Order: sequence, then structure tokens, then C-alpha cells
Amino acid sequence: MRKVVIIGFQSAGLSAAAAAKLYNREAEITVIERRTYATYHPCGLPYVIGGDVPDIRNLVEAAPTMPGVEVMLGTEARDIDTKAKTLEIIDRRTLREEKIPYDKLILATGSLAHRLSIPGADQRTVFTLRTMDDGKEILAALPRAERAVVIGAGPMGVEVAGALIGRGMEVALVEMQPSILPGMLDPDMSDVVLDRLTRSGIKVVCSNLVREIHGAGKSKSVVLEGEELPADIVIVTIGVKPDVELAARAGLKLSSMGTIAVDECLRTSDPDIFAAGDCAEARSLITGRPVQSQLATTAIRMGRVAGINAAGGNEVFEGVLNTIVSSACGLEFASTGLTSKAAKEAGIDAIATRVKASSRPFFYPGAEPIFAKLIAQRKDGRVIGGQIIGDGAAGRANLLALAIKQRLKVDELSRIEYCYAPPVSDCIEPLTVAADALLRRL
Amino acid sequence: MRKVVIIGFQSAGLSAAAAAKLYNREAEITVIERRTYATYHPCGLPYVIGGDVPDIRNLVEAAPTMPGVEVMLGTEARDIDTKAKTLEIIDRRTLREEKIPYDKLILATGSLAHRLSIPGADQRTVFTLRTMDDGKEILAALPRAERAVVIGAGPMGVEVAGALIGRGMEVALVEMQPSILPGMLDPDMSDVVLDRLTRSGIKVVCSNLVREIHGAGKSKSVVLEGEELPADIVIVTIGVKPDVELAARAGLKLSSMGTIAVDECLRTSDPDIFAAGDCAEARSLITGRPVQSQLATTAIRMGRVAGINAAGGNEVFEGVLNTIVSSACGLEFASTGLTSKAAKEAGIDAIATRVKASSRPFFYPGAEPIFAKLIAQRKDGRVIGGQIIGDGAAGRANLLALAIKQRLKVDELSRIEYCYAPPVSDCIEPLTVAADALLRRL
Repeated sequence: MRKVVIIGFQSAGLSAAAAAKLYNREAEITVIERRTYATYHPCGLPYVIGGDVPDIRNLVEAAPTMPGVEVMLGTEARDIDTKAKTLEIIDRRTLREEKIPYDKLILATGSLAHRLSIPGADQRTVFTLRTMDDGKEILAALPRAERAVVIGAGPMGVEVAGALIGRGMEVALVEMQPSILPGMLDPDMSDVVLDRLTRSGIKVVCSNLVREIHGAGKSKSVVLEGEELPADIVIVTIGVKPDVELAARAGLKLSSMGTIAVDECLRTSDPDIFAAGDCAEARSLITGRPVQSQLATTAIRMGRVAGINAAGGNEVFEGVLNTIVSSACGLEFASTGLTSKAAKEAGIDAIATRVKASSRPFFYPGAEPIFAKLIAQRKDGRVIGGQIIGDGAAGRANLLALAIKQRLKVDELSRIEYCYAPPVSDCIEPLTVAADALLRRL
Repeated sequence: MRKVVIIGFQSAGLSAAAAAKLYNREAEITVIERRTYATYHPCGLPYVIGGDVPDIRNLVEAAPTMPGVEVMLGTEARDIDTKAKTLEIIDRRTLREEKIPYDKLILATGSLAHRLSIPGADQRTVFTLRTMDDGKEILAALPRAERAVVIGAGPMGVEVAGALIGRGMEVALVEMQPSILPGMLDPDMSDVVLDRLTRSGIKVVCSNLVREIHGAGKSKSVVLEGEELPADIVIVTIGVKPDVELAARAGLKLSSMGTIAVDECLRTSDPDIFAAGDCAEARSLITGRPVQSQLATTAIRMGRVAGINAAGGNEVFEGVLNTIVSSACGLEFASTGLTSKAAKEAGIDAIATRVKASSRPFFYPGAEPIFAKLIAQRKDGRVIGGQIIGDGAAGRANLLALAIKQRLKVDELSRIEYCYAPPVSDCIEPLTVAADALLRRL
């Protein structure tokens, strides 16, 4: 019998518990979670704010009943004694402390919202959007707010801006990079999303830094360089940072990204401790280098590997392409692998092309444009990235992720088999249109 | 310079002409087409009948202007002189005959609708649905019809039945096999579509043969074994047969499926003649054996290979998985590779599983079920087929087609990277749910 303790009961922790139990029915699994409720879905928060999800409590999963898995909610992990292989925990309600032994430990401690460190950022009209409490506080503040400023135009920021404009508010979205969705889309693609946001009424300000937030009296505003945006409410969506406090205190090695360093089996510098999810080091499947990959899907996939290995298996986590989809103002957009910008930064001589295709054949009413961008290595034509905007973007990104993992070249992508029916798709698949266009440039 | 003559200007012929010209700018390309109008989209006919496409003329493409490609509409190919390498053509309007020389010839003669050979099948209320004329005649007959019988429940029959019920008619759909969509979905999947059709008001009759069609007076009906269905109009959608008349007359070898035999470069038994599209032999990418593959997408992909090779290139057509999507009564369904039934017929020891997943996370309103079936070889776990029903079925079938082509095993499919956003997809991809379920049975 093997005692596996998992710290954290979000995507990675839940996935690890399920995988460990499935792999080793004899394993005794304990999950330690600080929250008093089960797994919740932070990705759903923008849709609670927009009103699509009618009640924030809907985001919390029913506590799963997995025989042989004990979930201790409202319990905080305080310290790991790596020599004695025990974990000190405290019941947050009774304050009762306890030391529990482990054979293998999995750290799935997740991440915390980055906060701004500028004057005025600590006011009560300035929110992050990460936890259920964040969501509840924003919901409580919204009825008194007419003008919102969202700071940070990553996917979460864009989704929140879309949600707020959908509520009829006046919305500005501020991004310090020259274009929105900077880690996900190159500017020639994000401009399509920008156009949709702008047409939907969102004021988008790029290449500008927030200097100060004024919160008192009538002058409530967000102060930028040379510009001031009125703001009854400010939502800060500038990303998350891995929660590695416990790991650092236990002396585990950290990566250059500030995540817990792991090998390809997700084992930390302590052979009896694994890490998975936002807190754990992820590597690019293309470059092999550490990357940020704070996605629920990465956490689920990592959790599975950590869970199996902690339970006695020998799975490998092969790396990430950061396949991601988002949607705002009715527009779906997705990305996988390297952007042109990321390829350049990684020192890869890449070539790219962007095409405009159609979601349906010309004769079928309701056809919408599909934008597809493909990025390939110049030396061998290997596909290393793709971005898609429009209906079916998610499915196409998933297909491209498989193509990249399988090391497909552009000419192979241009020959893929695909299906067609007028209400569903065009008779030429947009990805093959993009591949053909890129082939001509290689 | 090289003179390439293409017979037929549908998907395969158009694709061949474009690919030949792109590959070899010096090539002189002539396309011979019996119709007096350019490429049209037979896949769009059900949606004309249903009224989604408001005018049947919308299905015809604008005649493309490709420099160096001459398209001779209203011209019939009469005979191929394979020794002299000339083609006898006749202008259908002026009846002027002409012999034109070729260096390479591409047969893209397509297919013709199968007709019933039973008493009453030749009446003017009995239609096939293949050509523009078929579509026009049905449209003209519909205002006088209240009760329709569709014979043959392949994708086209199901689409037409859905279109007619959408018009408020009384519709019956008859299939001689025990389940609908027999070549595309196994019964455990087609039953989901059947349920949707039935709920939409379509009377579906399987395992029954049409014996006779009564057309005169008040007793207009379709007579089955032990049953009679009232029918003001009968639409026969029992498939197509390759149009190989010209090829057979020229002495070209035919395959066991009645298609024009070709090698992997799509060269016929005459080295100067290629064939592509519905008239040409296709082989299964899995079994290597000849299969029916009368899909527009196959025609487009074959046309490209034939065009390049006729123009001097050396492309290989790797075979087909018959990746197909269709949609009826608001339900999307798709398939790729072998069904369980086809695997059995091919002598493959296969194992399959079917799962029910969700189009969106539990907390997001509007989640719809996604049904996914996976089929794998028992001996090595290699994925050989998949069927999907629900939103995004097409994209998932395309991904599975790539997975099958890349010879992925079930465990590799269970580890694919995919993306998630609440309005777009669930946090666990249905294909990985199916792969995990199948893994447990392997």
C-alpha cells in the first residue's frame, strides 16, 4: 500500500487524485485543500460577470466521491518535512494541527493573481479575478458601477471586457504591449479580435502603462501616460504567479520561471515529491525550454502524469504547446505552438502566412470569415505554430497541436483529409488553404 | 510545353486544372465539360430543397478565369484514341465535332445517381437528387406535394428528409439496411441521429425494401413489404455509380468496385491517362483495399494529385479514410476511418467504445451532449476509426483522421493537447474521454 498526499484540489489535484486511484487501486490518497469547497472553475468567472452563468455557485463542482480518496477541505498545508516524509496540516476552522505521513507527495498548489503595485491599486474598487471571492466581490460592486477599466488584455482580460460590455457598461481595456492577446496571437491576428472588440464598443488602449488609480470622490479613474480613463470599477487581469511558497520553504528547487522545477516525470528535486499544474515547471514541446503554461488543460494533463507516477507508474509529460481558445463579443479565437514573435525570441528562423477563408461555402447563407495563420521553420518546413479566428477555431487548434506534436511539415498539412457539409464547413478546409499559401513561400 | 486535357469540370476537374497550372506554368490546359455552366455544388441541393439556400442558381460557381486554362462548356467527350492520343469532342449546341490532341489526359467524369429498378420508378413524381436539373424538377414539384418518401438513408437521404420536414411536409425515410447511415455510423451511433429525426417528425422505416411505387390517382404511395407509405413525391437517394463509360470504351482497366483502376499516382492502365474523383479507384488508408469514396473532398484531393502528375509532377495519393460530416434536424454527425462493421468485414479484430460527453462545462448554459465512438485494433491499440455526434463533430473527425493517418494508438490519443474555454468546449475533450474509456478495455 502506498500513501499519496496531494496538496491542492483544483484541476491538477483533482486529475492527479483520479489518475492515481485508477492506476493503483491499493493507493491511499489524501487531498489537502485550503478552501472550504470543492474544485471550482476560475475560467467561468468572466461568464458569471457577464451573466451567461446565472449563479457564481454553479462554478463549484459537487464534491466527488472517489472511494479510497479522502478530500480534506478547509485544511491548510503548513510545512513539509522532507526527511521524515510528513506534512503538517491545520484545520482552518478548529485550528487543530496534525502531522500526516506520505510515501509520495504531489504539489498542486496552483497560482495566485498578479497584483499591480502602483498608487491606488489597493482600493476596494480595484479587483483581481481569480478566486470565487474575487468573483463575488465584483458581482457585488457591479450594480454601483457604470464605467469599468480592465487592465491587461490577455485572454482573461479580453473575456472580462467582453462580458462587461455585454452588460451595457462603458468599458476600456488597457494593455502595456503594442497589441492585445500578446502571448497568444501575433498582431496580424489579434487585430481581427481588436476590431471586433472596438466595434462592440470597448475602448482599447495598447502600448500604455497604468501609473495610478484614483478612487475617491468623483474623479475615480485610471491614470495612464497622457490619458485618464474614468473607472467606477477596475479589474486587473495581468496574469498569475505560481504559488510555490510551500515548495520553497521545503527547499525544493525552482525553475527560471519561478515554478517548481520538475523532470519529465514531474518529479521535483525531492524524489518523493511531484508537482503539477500552475505551480509546476512546464517545457515547450518545440524548444524544450521552460515556458509559462498556466492553463486548466495543462493542469489536467500534468495532474494525470503526476498522479500515476506518485501511485507507482512511470508516465512522461511530454511538454506543452499552450493550445488555447478564448471567445469574446461572439468571436472565437485560438492558438497553439509558437507565435511568430515567440519563434523569433527562441532564435528560430520561421516563416508565416495568414489567410482569410470561410466557415461555409459561398452559396450557404451565414458564412463567416475564418482567419488562419501558420508558422513553420524555414529550414525544414516543420509546422511550429498556428492561430485561428472564427467558428471552429478550437477544433482547428487541437488538430494543429496534434500536427505539431507529430512534427508534420507544411506540405503534409496541406494534404490532410477533412470533411465537408455546407451547413458545417467549406469544401476547402481553411488550414489547408493556409498550408498551401505557406508552401508557396517556402 | 505540355498539353493536358481534363474531362469533367466538377470538384476533381476544377482541382486538377488549378493544380496542374500551379505546378507547371507552361502547361496548356483544356477542360471539356458537357454541362453549359461551370462547377456546381451537388452537396448543396438538400439545402436548396429545404429553403436554406434561397436560389438553386447560387450553387453554380462563377466560371473561374485561370490564365492558360481553357474551359469548354457544353462540350461532350465522345471517344479517346489512346494510340493517336486524341480526344473526339462534340459541341452540343452546334453539333460540330473535333479531335483534340493531348499529352496527358485526366478523366474526372464523376458519377451518376443510382436509380431504382422496380415497378413505378420511372414516374414523373419519382426523382433522384444529383444534378441541377434534378433539383429544379423537385423544386417545381414540391408546391403540389404534401407527403414525401425518401428512399435511402445515407447522408444525402437523411439531409433531404431533414430539409423536407423543415418545410412542414409529411416525410418518411426508408432504408433497406437495419439502421440509417449504414456506411458512416454504427447502429449505436446512428440511433442517436435516428432519435433526432424521429423527434423532428420523420417516420423512419429500416430493414425494408421498396417493392413498387404507385403514382396515379389518389393512391400515390410507396409500397414496402407489409407496409404502404403515402407519397406525393418520392426522392431516391441510394447512392451514385461511377461514370466510366468513356474509360471502358477506351479499354482502360476497371477496379473491382467498377471505378477506373489507378496506381498510387492516379495513373490508369494507360500511362498517359489519369483519373480522379468519383470515377476513379480509391483505396482505404487502413486496409489498402479499394473502397467507395464518392466525396467532394476526396475528389478535390485526388484532382490535385492527378493535375500535378499530368503536368509533369510526381505526387502520390495516399488513400482515403472517408472522413465525412453531415447535418440534419440541427444535429451534426461525422465519421472517419472504419466503422466497427467495416472493420469486421475487413477481418480486423477491433475493439470499440462509445461515450457521452458534453459540448460545454456543466456550469455553462446550453451544453449539448457529444457522443464519441472510437474503434481500435485489438492487437496493437492502433486507432482505426471514429464517429462523433454533436457540435464540433467535423473538427473532431478531422483530428481523428490525422490521428489515424499518423498511426496513433489509443493511449497517444488520450494524451493529446486540446484547448478549453467555457463558451466553446468542455475542460475534458470528448475524444480523450473516449480514448480513456477504450484504454480500459484494451
